[in-house]
Formats: sequence, C-alpha cells, structure tokens
Amino acid sequence: METTTISKPALRESLLHDFDSVRAFSEAICQPLAVEDYVVQTMPDVSPTKWHLAHVSWFFETFILQPALTGYFSPDPLYAYLYNSYYNALGDRHCRPRRGQLSRPTVAETFRYRSYVDQQMRTFLNTASPDTLAEFEPLITLGIHHEQQHQELMVTDIKHVLGTNPLSPTCRWNGPDPSVTTSTLRVRESQTLSWTQFGGGLYEIGWDGSGFSFDNEGPRHRTFVEPFALSNRLVTNADWLEFIQDGGYQRSDLWLSMGWDMVQTFEWSAPLYWERGEGDWLTYTFAGKQIVDPNEPVCHVSFFEADAYARWADSRLPTEEEWEISAGTQPQVGNFADSMLFKPVPLTSDPRSAITQSFGDVWQWTASPYIGYPGYTPASGAVGEYNGKFMCNQFVLRGGSCATHSTHIRPTYRNFFAPDSRWQFTGLRLARS
Amino acid sequence: METTTISKPALRESLLHDFDSVRAFSEAICQPLAVEDYVVQTMPDVSPTKWHLAHVSWFFETFILQPALTGYFSPDPLYAYLYNSYYNALGDRHCRPRRGQLSRPTVAETFRYRSYVDQQMRTFLNTASPDTLAEFEPLITLGIHHEQQHQELMVTDIKHVLGTNPLSPTCRWNGPDPSVTTSTLRVRESQTLSWTQFGGGLYEIGWDGSGFSFDNEGPRHRTFVEPFALSNRLVTNADWLEFIQDGGYQRSDLWLSMGWDMVQTFEWSAPLYWERGEGDWLTYTFAGKQIVDPNEPVCHVSFFEADAYARWADSRLPTEEEWEISAGTQPQVGNFADSMLFKPVPLTSDPRSAITQSFGDVWQWTASPYIGYPGYTPASGAVGEYNGKFMCNQFVLRGGSCATHSTHIRPTYRNFFAPDSRWQFTGLRLARS
Amino acid sequence: METTTISKPALRESLLHDFDSVRAFSEAICQPLAVEDYVVQTMPDVSPTKWHLAHVSWFFETFILQPALTGYFSPDPLYAYLYNSYYNALGDRHCRPRRGQLSRPTVAETFRYRSYVDQQMRTFLNTASPDTLAEFEPLITLGIHHEQQHQELMVTDIKHVLGTNPLSPTCRWNGPDPSVTTSTLRVRESQTLSWTQFGGGLYEIGWDGSGFSFDNEGPRHRTFVEPFALSNRLVTNADWLEFIQDGGYQRSDLWLSMGWDMVQTFEWSAPLYWERGEGDWLTYTFAGKQIVDPNEPVCHVSFFEADAYARWADSRLPTEEEWEISAGTQPQVGNFADSMLFKPVPLTSDPRSAITQSFGDVWQWTASPYIGYPGYTPASGAVGEYNGKFMCNQFVLRGGSCATHSTHIRPTYRNFFAPDSRWQFTGLRLARS
Amino acid sequence: METTTISKPALRESLLHDFDSVRAFSEAICQPLAVEDYVVQTMPDVSPTKWHLAHVSWFFETFILQPALTGYFSPDPLYAYLYNSYYNALGDRHCRPRRGQLSRPTVAETFRYRSYVDQQMRTFLNTASPDTLAEFEPLITLGIHHEQQHQELMVTDIKHVLGTNPLSPTCRWNGPDPSVTTSTLRVRESQTLSWTQFGGGLYEIGWDGSGFSFDNEGPRHRTFVEPFALSNRLVTNADWLEFIQDGGYQRSDLWLSMGWDMVQTFEWSAPLYWERGEGDWLTYTFAGKQIVDPNEPVCHVSFFEADAYARWADSRLPTEEEWEISAGTQPQVGNFADSMLFKPVPLTSDPRSAITQSFGDVWQWTASPYIGYPGYTPASGAVGEYNGKFMCNQFVLRGGSCATHSTHIRPTYRNFFAPDSRWQFTGLRLARS
Repeated sequence: METTTISKPALRESLLHDFDSVRAFSEAICQPLAVEDYVVQTMPDVSPTKWHLAHVSWFFETFILQPALTGYFSPDPLYAYLYNSYYNALGDRHCRPRRGQLSRPTVAETFRYRSYVDQQMRTFLNTASPDTLAEFEPLITLGIHHEQQHQELMVTDIKHVLGTNPLSPTCRWNGPDPSVTTSTLRVRESQTLSWTQFGGGLYEIGWDGSGFSFDNEGPRHRTFVEPFALSNRLVTNADWLEFIQDGGYQRSDLWLSMGWDMVQTFEWSAPLYWERGEGDWLTYTFAGKQIVDPNEPVCHVSFFEADAYARWADSRLPTEEEWEISAGTQPQVGNFADSMLFKPVPLTSDPRSAITQSFGDVWQWTASPYIGYPGYTPASGAVGEYNGKFMCNQFVLRGGSCATHSTHIRPTYRNFFAPDSRWQFTGLRLARS
Repeated sequence: METTTISKPALRESLLHDFDSVRAFSEAICQPLAVEDYVVQTMPDVSPTKWHLAHVSWFFETFILQPALTGYFSPDPLYAYLYNSYYNALGDRHCRPRRGQLSRPTVAETFRYRSYVDQQMRTFLNTASPDTLAEFEPLITLGIHHEQQHQELMVTDIKHVLGTNPLSPTCRWNGPDPSVTTSTLRVRESQTLSWTQFGGGLYEIGWDGSGFSFDNEGPRHRTFVEPFALSNRLVTNADWLEFIQDGGYQRSDLWLSMGWDMVQTFEWSAPLYWERGEGDWLTYTFAGKQIVDPNEPVCHVSFFEADAYARWADSRLPTEEEWEISAGTQPQVGNFADSMLFKPVPLTSDPRSAITQSFGDVWQWTASPYIGYPGYTPASGAVGEYNGKFMCNQFVLRGGSCATHSTHIRPTYRNFFAPDSRWQFTGLRLARS
Repeated sequence: METTTISKPALRESLLHDFDSVRAFSEAICQPLAVEDYVVQTMPDVSPTKWHLAHVSWFFETFILQPALTGYFSPDPLYAYLYNSYYNALGDRHCRPRRGQLSRPTVAETFRYRSYVDQQMRTFLNTASPDTLAEFEPLITLGIHHEQQHQELMVTDIKHVLGTNPLSPTCRWNGPDPSVTTSTLRVRESQTLSWTQFGGGLYEIGWDGSGFSFDNEGPRHRTFVEPFALSNRLVTNADWLEFIQDGGYQRSDLWLSMGWDMVQTFEWSAPLYWERGEGDWLTYTFAGKQIVDPNEPVCHVSFFEADAYARWADSRLPTEEEWEISAGTQPQVGNFADSMLFKPVPLTSDPRSAITQSFGDVWQWTASPYIGYPGYTPASGAVGEYNGKFMCNQFVLRGGSCATHSTHIRPTYRNFFAPDSRWQFTGLRLARS
Repeated sequence: METTTISKPALRESLLHDFDSVRAFSEAICQPLAVEDYVVQTMPDVSPTKWHLAHVSWFFETFILQPALTGYFSPDPLYAYLYNSYYNALGDRHCRPRRGQLSRPTVAETFRYRSYVDQQMRTFLNTASPDTLAEFEPLITLGIHHEQQHQELMVTDIKHVLGTNPLSPTCRWNGPDPSVTTSTLRVRESQTLSWTQFGGGLYEIGWDGSGFSFDNEGPRHRTFVEPFALSNRLVTNADWLEFIQDGGYQRSDLWLSMGWDMVQTFEWSAPLYWERGEGDWLTYTFAGKQIVDPNEPVCHVSFFEADAYARWADSRLPTEEEWEISAGTQPQVGNFADSMLFKPVPLTSDPRSAITQSFGDVWQWTASPYIGYPGYTPASGAVGEYNGKFMCNQFVLRGGSCATHSTHIRPTYRNFFAPDSRWQFTGLRLARS
C-alpha cells in the first residue's frame, strides 16, 4: 500500500486496490471461524467479530457514502445505532459491554451488509469525479487503515474468545503451520542480551508528512534526549520464566501501586493465557495449548508487568522518543499479519550485532503516557474523536505485532492501551540510561 | 404422557414414547432459530439455547447412562464441567453468568451430542432388563420432565434474547399465526371481573401419589384455610393499564419495600417488554412489536408488581393452598406450549359463570413463599439438589403457561421464582378474604 | 410496663412512667460509650448510636408532637430528612448507608435534641386533655416500643462497631461482670438434649387482643399443625463446635443454595465474631475477646447456618406456629437486657424435665418466612409502613434475646431478619416431625 | 523553614524548631473541630482527621524512633497495622476505605499518641550524637514535610466531611474572617485576561540540589520547549460561569472520553460544592454556603474539567515544564495555609502587567502525566514507596494552594492527583502555543 503522492488516475486505481485488498483480508481472517465464534464477547474490551465486520463498513458508510452520495441509505436505520463505536457527535449508540448480547444481525446478514457497502464503495471509487475523489481521499485512506486496526483487534478478540474457552479450540488459517514454527530446542540457550548505545541531543520525532499517518503521529517536533541504551532484542519467555522463578509476581517493591493492586485482585502470576502444566508452563495459541517456547518474545503482558520486569532487570522501559530514534534506523521487516501465523516467533537473525525485532511479533510497551505531541490538535467534527479524546491514562506502544499488517506500521505509529491490558500481542524491550 | 401404573412391557414402550416425543419437542422449539440465537446470554438468568439442549442431555448421561452402562463415556470429559447447572455433589462447574461467552461446542456439535445421548438412551431403553428399567424409571421420568422444564426456559430465554435486541426480530413456529390470534377489538370492554366464594375449613393439598410429581409437591397434607374468594379470571392488560394510569408505579404505599427499590433502581413503569408507542403501548412478541391487547392476561410482571397491583385493587394474591383448592375443581385445559403459539390469549369462554383460566396462558403468582411442605425431605444424593435447596426467597407460581407443555402441568405443580423475576410468562389472579 | 385496660388518670401516669423509663434506658445503654463510638457505621445494616437516639425522638415528634401540638417545630427542619428511617409517606430521607458519614449533629447536639423532645412530650403527657391522650395513646405506646426495638439495635450495632475494630475494645455497663458469668467449667458435659412431644391439631396463634402488640402479631387465627417435637434447650456452642469439626461449613449438601453462596463468598467458617485462637476458639464479647464457652447458647449465626446445622443434626427448625404453641405454655422469664449483661448465658435450670430457654438469651430462627397472617392489613398512613412492607425474603425469629427488654417480649412477638443476617443475637432450637 | 546547609549545632536547633512548629500547626488546624469531625470518612479518598494525626506520628516512629532508639516501643503494637498508609515493605495494613469505621483509638488517645511521639522525638533531637543526627536528618526533614502534606489533606478532608453534610456546618479558625475576605463587588468586571509570551529552547528544570525536595522533583535535567504563552492570571469563577452558560458540561466534543464518562455518570454540572441557589450559584466554604464570588479563582475542578475548559477557551493546559519555566521567575508569595483562611481569594494586584498567582490559592492542573524525570530512581527500602510507585494515571499540579504552608512549596514541587479528583483546592491557568 504505497502512499506517496500519486497522479489522479493512479489515485483511483490505488484506492480501489487498497480498499479491495484490505476488505478481502478482513474476510480472510474470518475464514476458519464457526458462526458461533463471531457472536461472543468474553469481556467488555472484546468485540464480537461480526461487530467488527459491520463497524468498519459503517465507517465507510458514515464518513464517505452518506456525505458523498445523495440519497444513500443504509440497509437498516438501526445500524447507525448498533455500529457506532464511540463517536458522540454521531448520536446515541449501543452499549459496548452488550455487543455480545445481540444474535442479530446474523453473520450472514453482516456479510450481506459488507457486500452492499463494498459495492457502493466500488461504484463510488470508479465513478466519482477526480475532484470528489481527491476530496474524500483522506477519509477513504483513513477508513482503510481503520479497518486494518480492526483486523488486529479481530485476531486478538478471537484469540480471547477461543483461549478462554475451557475446550481450548484451535483455529487454523491458510498460513504456515503454527505448531511447526515454534522452536523445537527446549534447552537452547536464550539469546545473549546486549545493549546498543545512543547519543543524547536534540532529535526530531513524529510524522514527517509523506504518506498516510494518524493525526496523533504529528506534528513532527524537536525533543531533547539524554544518552540511552536499548537492549538488542525483545524480552523472551526464557527471561520471563526467570522473573517468575525469582518471585517477580510476589515482590511488591517491583510494581507500581496500581499494578500491584491488579496482581492481588486478579491473582496474576504469569502472562495472560499461561497456565502451569505438569513440569512446563503452557500457553494458549491458535494451535491449542502449547508448551511455552523459551525463545519466543514474551507476549500478552500488561504495561504493569512490563514495567515490573524492567525494574527487576535493573532497567527501564524506553520512552517512545528513544524507541523511535532507534527504530527509525531499522529496516521495517518482521513477523507480521500478512503471513497469517498470528504468533510471535523466536529471533533467528544474529542478535549480537545490532538492534533487532523493532517491528512485528509484539507491540512494545514504552514508558510514555499517551498524550498529544506539542501543537497537536484533532480534526474538527466526528473524525476528530478518532484519537485525541483517549489521551488519558493509557501508554504508548510501538512497532506493531504478528497481528499487524505490514502495510499498517511505521516508525512513528503510536498505538495505545490502558496499563492493565493484556489481550493484545504486547511485549517489551529494555532501556537503560 | 400418561403416568399411571403400567405393566412392564408397557413401561418400556411408554418411556420410549415419552422420551422420544419430549426430545423431539425440544428440537421443534429450535426450528426457527438462527445459529447465532443459540449462543447469546442476555442476562445471568438466561441461558443460551445450545446450553439448554446440552444440559438436558447431560442430565440423562449423568443420572442414567453413567450409572447404568458400564464403560459409558461422554463425547468430551469437559461436558460434565460445562453442563452441570447447579449440582454441588457432581463436582466443579462452569460459572453460570459466563455461559454466553462460549462459542464452542458449536450448535452442530451440540446437536451431535444430543444425538449421541438419544442413541444411547434408546439402546438402553430397548435393551435394559425389566428390573433395571424399573429401577431407573423414576430418574428417566424425572429426566423427561426436567427437559420439559427446560423447554419452557428455552422459550422464555429466546424471547429475552430476541426481545431485548433493538431490531425486534420475529420468530415463527409451525403453529397458528400469532398476529391473527390477538383480539382485534381494541375498544371491547374488559371482561367483567366477578368473585367465586370458597368455604373455609381443613383441606388436603399436595400430590396424592399417583403418577409423576416433583418431590416438592408432597407430602400431601392437611391445612386449615379461612373462607376466601377468587377472581373468576386473570388480570388483563386492560386492568393493568388502569393501574398504570392511576399512578401504580409511582405510589410507594402500594409496594413492598424491596419492590419499591426495584421500581426506583430499574425504573419499572410497565411490564417487561412494554414500551410506549405513539398513543398505544407496544409489547414485544415473537411476531415482533405489537400493540398491547387489552383482553389478554397481563404477562411478564414480577411478584412485586403482582402484589402491588393486588393491593391497588383492594385485593391480595391467593395463597398456593387457595389456588390449589380452586384449581383442583377445574378441567386441566388451556393455552399450552403444544400449539407453539407461545403467547397468552384473551379469554373466550364466558367468564361470568365460574373460575376460568386456571391453567395455561401465564403462571400465576401466589402469596406463598416457596418452602417445603410439612414432612418434606429431598432425595439423597445429587438428585436431592433438584428442588429443596432453593427453598428461600422465592415465591410459588401455579397453573402453567403458554410455554408449558400440557403433559407437564398438574394442580399440585409448584413453580417458583425470585420476586423480581419478569422474563417468565407470569401474571396473576386476585383473591379476597 | 403493664398494658391492660386502665382508668384515665392511671393512663396518664402509666404513659409518663413508661415513657420516662424507656427514654432513660436508652441513655443508660450509652453510658459507657466514647463520643467516637456514637458516630461510626461499620456496615449498611448498622446505624450510628447517635442516629438511633435521634431517630426514636423524631418518631415521637412526627407521630405525636407535630399532629398534636399546633405550632410545634423541630429544632432543625433538616432533622426530618436525617432521621426518617424508611417512611416513604414522610418525604425524602438521607441515604441509609451514609449515616456514618455525618459528624454533625454532634453527640451533644443529639442529646439536646432528645431533651427537647422529652420536655415537649412530658408537657404534652401532663397537660393533654383526657380525650386527646386517649386518641394518641396507641401511637405513644408504639413510640415506646419502637424505642425499645432500637435499644436492641443499639446494643448489637455497638457490638459490631467495637467487635470489628482490630483493638477489640471493651465496654462495661453497671451490670454483672461479664467475665465472671461465663461458665468456668471448660470440660463440663454439654447438657443432654431431649425432645418434648406436642400433639397435632387445630391451634389458635397470634395476638389475642389484650395489651400492646405490633400489627404483624395478628389477627389471631387458626392453624392446623401436625404432631411435632421440640428440643428441650437451645443449641450450644459445644454443639456448634461438633458441627464445625464435622465439616459443617465444607459440606454443600447441608446448605440452602443461597446459604452456600454466602459460605463461599464471605468464607464463613464459624459464627460471627469467632476466630481461631491457639487451641481454642475465641469470640468477641463486650468484655473483649473471650474463649468460646461451650455451655452458652450459640449466637450470631444466620438463618442459613441455623438451617444447615439443623439438617446436619437430622432435625429441622421449628415453624413459628410450633414455637408459639410451645412458648405459650412457658413462663416468660430469661436473660434479658434489663440486667445489662448483654450476652447469652449457659442454661442453669435442669434441662431434662421440660422446654427451657423459651425467652431471652438469643432470638430463635424459625423455618417460617415472614409474611402477613391471614386477614392482616397494615394501618393506613405512614405508620402502616412499620411492618407490612418488609414481608418479603425475611425469616421470623421468636423469643427475644439478652438485648431485649423484658417488657418488650411476648409469645406472639414476631421479629424478622434477612436469612444472611448475623449481627443480631440469634441462635436456634431444633424441631422434629 | 530554612533548609540551606547549616552548622551542626544549628542543625539540631533548626530541626527542633521545624519539628515543633509543624507539629503545632497540625494541632492548630484541628482547633475548631468537634470530636465527631475527627472520625468520619466521607469517601475512600478522604481519611479521618484522627487517622492523619496518628499516621504522621507513626511515620516518625517508623523511620526515626524505631531504627534510632534501641528498645523503643509504640504504645500499641496494632498502631503499625492501623497507621501504615501504603508501605508494602512494612507489612499488612488496615484497609483504606474502612478508616472511617474505627471509633477507637479515640481522639483523646490519638492526641496522647502524638504527645508520646513528640516527647520521644524531642528527647532524640536533643540528645542524639551529632553523627546520628546528621544520619537521620534527611528522614526527619522528610517526616516534617510529610506532615505538612497531611496538613493540607486534613484541611481538604475536613472540608469534604463538613461540605457534604446536609447541615453545611461552619468551621472557624483564628484567622481572618472568611466571610469578609470575599469580594463584595458582585458586578465588578472580571480581570482582563492577557498572555505572556515565553521563548522556546532548551531549559533546565527540576530540583537543583539546595535545600529539601521530594525525590520526584529531580534529577534536574534539560528539556526542549517550543515557544509558548501563559495567561497572566488563574481562571476565575466568572470565567467558569461563562463556560457553564455556554453548555460546557453538555458538549461532549470538549471532553476527554474518560472525562465525559464522569460527567454522565456523576452528573457533573459545576465544580464540587457548587449548587444552584435562587438566582445565584452557591458554594460550600468553611463559613457555610456562600454565593460564588466571580473574582475568585475557580476551585475544586478536576483535571477533566480543567482540560475541557481550556479546550472551550481555545487554549490548553500548560505542561509542567512550561509552568516551572514561568514560575521560576516569580516571587514565591501568595495566599497560603499560614493565614488559616483556607479559601482562594480574588486577585488584588494589577493583573495586566505580568504573570500573577503563581503560588497559593489553588493547585494548577498541568497537561503533564505524572511520571519520573529522566534518570529518576526512588530510594531503596520502604521510603522508596513514597512517590515513585504512584507514577501512573495521575496528572501533575503545581504552585500550592490556600491549604499549603508557605514553607512547603517550591517552583519544582510536583503534586499529583488522579484526573477525576475534585476535593483538593484545584484550579487552572491557561496556555497557548
């Protein structure tokens, strides 16, 4: 999905291509699901897959089709109520924690709704005047990236639906065999962790203006950074097992106060999906319960756990500025959603030489609370609710994960979640001053 | 389903017949459902339909197949965990309010489970020795009646799933057309309410020992009753509209203290499923939203509402003894689940002459807290948990409803629900001293 | 407090006497309290002592002084808001669970308020015309008994305030030394439990119309009772220790379903205020933590615990009718609040000969849900909210306790609490059919 | 409280002086309280005054007396349990939301405990060897500042206790008459708001190492700041009334998502303690309910409200860096706790010329989430729990308030509260880029 400036005929073609391929990928994600899997909501943070499929269609309806096409009407006037996620400017909406209480529209009806929107969008993309197309291009592109965000949520939400089911059902895409990709060497040494030093000074970070970005990635601005070092690789399951064995989940001194409350209240003693087997720790993957692979990056840990781990390791989490300075120098390659493997994999490149694993595998928690950059102002109107109003009590994550599409990540990309969230593919890299 | 004493060959045949017809009726209830409708749990009291279908099968597995058949095994050892409803004696169980968070087993897998149990049960019923059959007959019969109870719950739970969906979807069985059966006369006078007097004295109530009953219907025992009068018919929607218009939901003096708390907390202002349309009150039925028919018995009211209504009407609810004395003299006919209409209907017989509507249409709240009769003791073992352990903070209802099968009701039948429950087909008849 | 029909001069004198002695006893209960002890509310069921003192004064204000005295005004118009307990007919009121959040009015102000009401009431009692006095006599008497009920609540609420304080502070009245009255014989045999048989038949129970009673004690009515037996004495701590040692709190089969939920949720493993010491069980008393006396009647158990115990003991709880039939034949003597001992004591009379301990020591849970007797109707107006509106989800207790004044108990007296309540002085007697 | 480096005899004298004057000021704050006022906890954030008085004494006991004095023992071993606020390293502690459920220790016992600690501390300060004194000096000074923090909490907690009481009781210190200090000119024009421009560039902020500071004020470090402007004065009540009248509490577009949830859930429509009178807005002050003074700085607003107001005013909140850059140039004068007025006052100096009101009156919300400065590490041991473990989901406030002592504030002082907190004296100043 190239997004550099392009000529007008190319724009139409490019939008059609991106729209089609993203819409198709959403449906590819659903391919192995049973009808029942689309319906269930296992916690308020999780949305049913059929809701995601409809909501991203509603987004195109609301921000493109309705303003652009006179007389456009949605298949059902209640869809605007059911599929508005959080836009106050767009009227009342269905209560989020009750999304799993709706058996209707059915999955088939939801796909019919998608088809209808697809058809209307394609007609629009094919027939709109160049000026109209140019006018709507930013919102269309936003809609495409919005759907990519929901693709990642679909994967993580499906994992929660299946992974919290006592039957531990499997889910198999047309990708590589997940049970094979796990490293077979149980006793292999964890990769040596080394540190790469970065000089202090005045840096520029944030979106530089070419191609697509979300509004929260800018404005590009100067920031002063003291010298710092980053670990060459992500923290692995082997590392995490040491933390557990050293009493990491029992030592209050390692934890933020709110984090320690979570440990106590929810009896956290390992990452989400881990459970003690006989001798080994097991974890739920889309291939069912598997022995925890020591060489994989640790995954499904909250900010609180990442922060406690870093303290235990005499380190700290990097700030988002430090992360961006480092990642800006790295090739944007990694284990992304494109392969439909949907699990982190062990590092295969030689880790001793450089920063590795900057992108893919797991979102990396940073020490940075999610706030607006200097000079940030959200867009006006409903679309302005996209990012800005969530700038409170969340932390920034960077780098994308195995559930992020490779066309949907940038060094400046700022993801954000509450510090107790664990159901995303979230891990960490260490920093030191 | 005749249940008087029968000869041994007849017993086998009778059990096979009852088993088959009850199992078939459960599936007939599901016939109009979409797959998604089986999955959803709209409140903790509601269970997903696929859970009901599996649970009643698990009941046969647990109480008949496993003790009777050496080497019997369930398709999945986790089913014992998932489908145990509340039997502490049978080990751990899945948390009730999370039944709607399970996409698996799928609906198709659930039906396969049912088929498997059906097959095993039929083999057992066909091949068990007469002695074994006689030994297990009480539990088999209990299992059959147990499934009939869940059939009623399936209907009321499906109604809640669809009726709380903003789309108000319809659900159409192979029964009479529900939109036709509603009385068309909007302005027709409500039927005159008259009173039938009953003399006081020592009465016997409770199950007399012939045929099947639940353990809570006995022992038959003497009770002293003062003279009383019962209304000849059920309270109708027309009656209830008067109560609403007279401020019934705003007058705290009409309500029990806990009932008034419910009115305030949940903003009750009409029966469940009612909402104000333009000019008319509407209510959700399986035929979608309909104008409230003034001539139908009022339905979906809690004990608290029934009690407040009775106080408003200078009356009271009958005790269960009074109800049984009256109903014992009535023919056991009415609007039952057999027709698959699943909604109450207006009284058609001449109401002035006698007690009417003793059975069917709506369960009738009584003034009696649900406790054991004198001398009641539950069975030993897990099956003893069936009724006895719920004898606290619930009220007795009598007479069956439009979702009760005609073979599943008796004058001595004691249904029970918490006083704030509204999602069952529940209404009332008045009494006076 | 004699309450038989009396001549008019005697009425005035009798009311003055009763009013004065009851008002004085409330203050005697407060004598050992620190100012801080009057303020605290340790759970929603508990009210601060200063609230009780004010509320009972407000009752006289509201039901006697304001209707009887033209131009009467309360010291502060907000007192009507602060001290209305639950009378909807009397306007808005302060939220019950927040009673402990009010530092003002202070204790001194509260006593000034009491004095003011006392003075006004005495003036009224001394100067009202005989007709006026006769007209208000029922409400004055109700106010006196109402204050006696709150005296018992004050004692139990103070016990909760002090007993849940980690410092286990003591509280010493001008009564017998509580640490002496405890039986010193640790190894003494528990008194033999024997059974007294009662014949079945038609009995009359309920208030017969002479003297004062609460409205819920009538109407007197006939009831048919099967033959039954009652245990000659109350269940003791020694009995209860056997229940604990036999796993009574671990065996779900002994419990009602809601009771078992309580056991699990609140980790009940002994009566309220009990804790394991080294070797012995300890319990909080007003004399501080004491070793549990095996010979005392068990106290501070809920209905759920009493019911489970009875099931464990192959018995059941008596119905309130059975209890009243038995107690009606007994002398109304016992360990009451008059002595200001405020704790149950071991049985000293010979237990083998007859029913003992019918009155005093501990309220005895019955198997009877609290509902109105046949023909019961509450008074009209606010005073009708006194009893009737609570007839739901509570159970009847009989016999009074060590915190009940001897002038405040009758064989027909129906106390009632929710089945999970434990902070009252509540115990049990066994019954068998 | 001078804190520059001082000679050893001077150190002893200086500590004695500071200790005595701070201890005395705590008790001066309590002077107008009734005993009952010390006991109550009106929400979990609020602590009873007697708890504060004991907790600050426990702090000296725990961090100085116990380590320094062999054989020191506390009056009651349970005090360590009752008065530990949040130090996990110091063992179990009493549950915070239950602090208001303890009537004992009484207020008198609490003051005895204080006296005992005072006496021991004075003996220690007078007799400790110079080396010991020097060793403990940092913790003694921390204890003194810790008590000053709790003095502010005492004032705000007492205000909550009295201000949420329906009787609106007054509380009068030996300070200026609060009802006089309010500006009498109701129609006076609000002071003109003007902007002072600051240049961008690399600044140093944080504690520079001389005198006392909390650990979170350092390390001093460089930060790059873009040019910015600050409003010359604080936002006033007159300003806020415009915001209200313009629908500020009804427009979701002005609010952060979590803030809007608070508005909806708690029905915020004005600052805490405000209520509509007839024609005017009233607010609770220690002088009782008063008409809102338009010229006073607005107070008792949450971060969410401050942030929404700034958005409405086409501005933003300053970052803490911007605030410190500005305040560092200002004289540290203002309306502090020393006068015991305990309310913000209108600006009296000419506001047009410069930045005013940098200190005192109200804490100023900043846009900065509370996190550690680059290189920050908490002390080891229990005292390390003082600040660092709260660096999550809180926002920084600057400048002190009318409840802060003048010896307890610095330009580098970082206060922090959750973004929904309103019971502190919190207001705001505007910024623009």
